[in-house]
Amino acid sequence: MIKKNDHIGIAVKDLDAQVVFYRDILGLEFHGYEELPDRGLKVGIFIVNDIRIELLQSISSDSAIGQFIEKKGEGIHHIAFYSDSVQAELDRLKAAGVKLIDETPKPGAEGMKIAFLHPKSTFRVLLELCQK
Amino acid sequence: MIKKNDHIGIAVKDLDAQVVFYRDILGLEFHGYEELPDRGLKVGIFIVNDIRIELLQSISSDSAIGQFIEKKGEGIHHIAFYSDSVQAELDRLKAAGVKLIDETPKPGAEGMKIAFLHPKSTFRVLLELCQK
Repeated sequence: MIKKNDHIGIAVKDLDAQVVFYRDILGLEFHGYEELPDRGLKVGIFIVNDIRIELLQSISSDSAIGQFIEKKGEGIHHIAFYSDSVQAELDRLKAAGVKLIDETPKPGAEGMKIAFLHPKSTFRVLLELCQK
Repeated sequence: MIKKNDHIGIAVKDLDAQVVFYRDILGLEFHGYEELPDRGLKVGIFIVNDIRIELLQSISSDSAIGQFIEKKGEGIHHIAFYSDSVQAELDRLKAAGVKLIDETPKPGAEGMKIAFLHPKSTFRVLLELCQK
């Protein structure tokens, strides 16, 4: 079951410049940087009340974020929902006919387990499920 | 000051089909439909914990959502932050050099006052400010 909106992921080219914008101009609470070498990402994390905003910069030529920016330019990349059991949700959604990118959860930022649904099944919106 | 993330706006072609997906397949709480004839929009509103997801369908050939879909296809359209005073935030951001789409708030869904920042100043992410 989906419990809440966990975060919004934004694909960015220049993470440091965007951190300045979100922190110093918009005035959002900056939670820090995190590197995810396995996914070729450096992440800048903001907390807005109960939701995180993750600015995602590619640090590897073959990362999904790098490919996204090459095709579509920088901008909003995905919406992530929190679930107490991502695997159970994946199984449930698959049984309901939803196409999945990840059949099992993989590691995400902040030690989360994450999985993406396939945009073909979600009207081109990239949706992620995640859990602690 | 920005208080929280208020909603995420998604540009959709077939609102009814997407309501079925978000309500019956994902299992999110459906709050209802609203028509905004002034903005050429029909909106399907979902509530996920404290955040709303607004599915935005164009009902007028010259609506901003219709133009967005024509250029980029359907998908995530904007992120909206809640502020107790949108006008004060607009004035503050303008003074900080941020380009605005709306210099003063206009009517949005659910009786909100809303205003958009210009994507040129926000690294191509369309950001909205809103208040009750």
